[in-house]
Amino acid sequence: MFITFEGPDGGGKTTQVAMTVSTLRERGHNVLLTREPGGTAIGDQIRHVLHDMKNQAMHPRAELLMYSASRAQIVEEVIRPHLAAKGLVICDRFFDSTYAYQGYGHGLDLSQLKLITEFATGGLKPDLTILLDIAPEDSLQRRLSALDKGGEWNRLDAMALDFHKRVRDGYHALVAADPQRWVVVNAAQSVEQVQGDILKALEPRLVETKSQG
Amino acid sequence: MFITFEGPDGGGKTTQVAMTVSTLRERGHNVLLTREPGGTAIGDQIRHVLHDMKNQAMHPRAELLMYSASRAQIVEEVIRPHLAAKGLVICDRFFDSTYAYQGYGHGLDLSQLKLITEFATGGLKPDLTILLDIAPEDSLQRRLSALDKGGEWNRLDAMALDFHKRVRDGYHALVAADPQRWVVVNAAQSVEQVQGDILKALEPRLVETKSQG
Repeated sequence: MFITFEGPDGGGKTTQVAMTVSTLRERGHNVLLTREPGGTAIGDQIRHVLHDMKNQAMHPRAELLMYSASRAQIVEEVIRPHLAAKGLVICDRFFDSTYAYQGYGHGLDLSQLKLITEFATGGLKPDLTILLDIAPEDSLQRRLSALDKGGEWNRLDAMALDFHKRVRDGYHALVAADPQRWVVVNAAQSVEQVQGDILKALEPRLVETKSQG
Repeated sequence: MFITFEGPDGGGKTTQVAMTVSTLRERGHNVLLTREPGGTAIGDQIRHVLHDMKNQAMHPRAELLMYSASRAQIVEEVIRPHLAAKGLVICDRFFDSTYAYQGYGHGLDLSQLKLITEFATGGLKPDLTILLDIAPEDSLQRRLSALDKGGEWNRLDAMALDFHKRVRDGYHALVAADPQRWVVVNAAQSVEQVQGDILKALEPRLVETKSQG
């Protein structure tokens, strides 16, 4: 089973992914946790180029191709082998980030994005995607407040608020187009409430997976 | 006018490109010289990842997407602005390298490569492409002999001879499919003979460009 988490930076995604993985492991699931961009030695080098503040001149088409390169590598090197061994894969961001950020955010053509994404993934799709949904004003505020506690402020944070609003609307359009695959969780709640909603969404699907196995 | 040079590493491409550029500049042409992968600050970071010997595990699809990212960046940041200013652009490798190495060499699907290439370039094509043609046994031997004079041996050199043979056959197939755009030069000749053949091929086309201007 392949589960992905989506939503803006500053929406608590990393924390929630870590809590979910630890709960599932306690329950005996063979969970592989990974993230995009990155997740492999090659992907981490790509992630570094993508996030470096000195690379502000990056063209949106180049950006998309870099994300897709990291994705092709992680699918072949990490995700497919673990799924083939009947494991559960949890990925912090996957191709929906491309549609939301490069498609809806930067206005790249969605049908071209789909062709490139299908090339990069070889057609692999998540079974379930959890959207941690939060207004961009709130997620950016959280990123700013975390800066003095060692938080990060990267090239994508520095985009205008308008961009982040288009990204959120894009996520909602993706949910509407494929509602079976998505669960939307209100990420403005407390950490415990958000985690509760995530587990509530996961449990029936994990049971289903077990009864099939 | 947009001119590209193709052929294997070890075929004298870098030397011939430098000589050609210097001759054309002496004749008063406004020449911009660039190369792929690289040619921009972002492209140079991508080039480093592509050539690093520790990245042998790179999947061919990831590799293609990395080359395409570097290409998207150089087209928008460097090539199109210089062409728009009526300059002459010479590029050491362009998309034909993708078709030859990733398509014919690694066996990736050529129609998918074309879709991704058209996305990366926004449809830009060279007016003239010069193939420095040499048997892979000879070009690899030259690369090996140059090692003690500070030459380079990278991840692509380390591919099997069979791979390099498929790349050469691929170049010939590309020439056959679009013979108007290509000039094939025998790169096993002396440096002076090769340069003579290149200038002979360029001269009538440059005159044509001037008479139109």
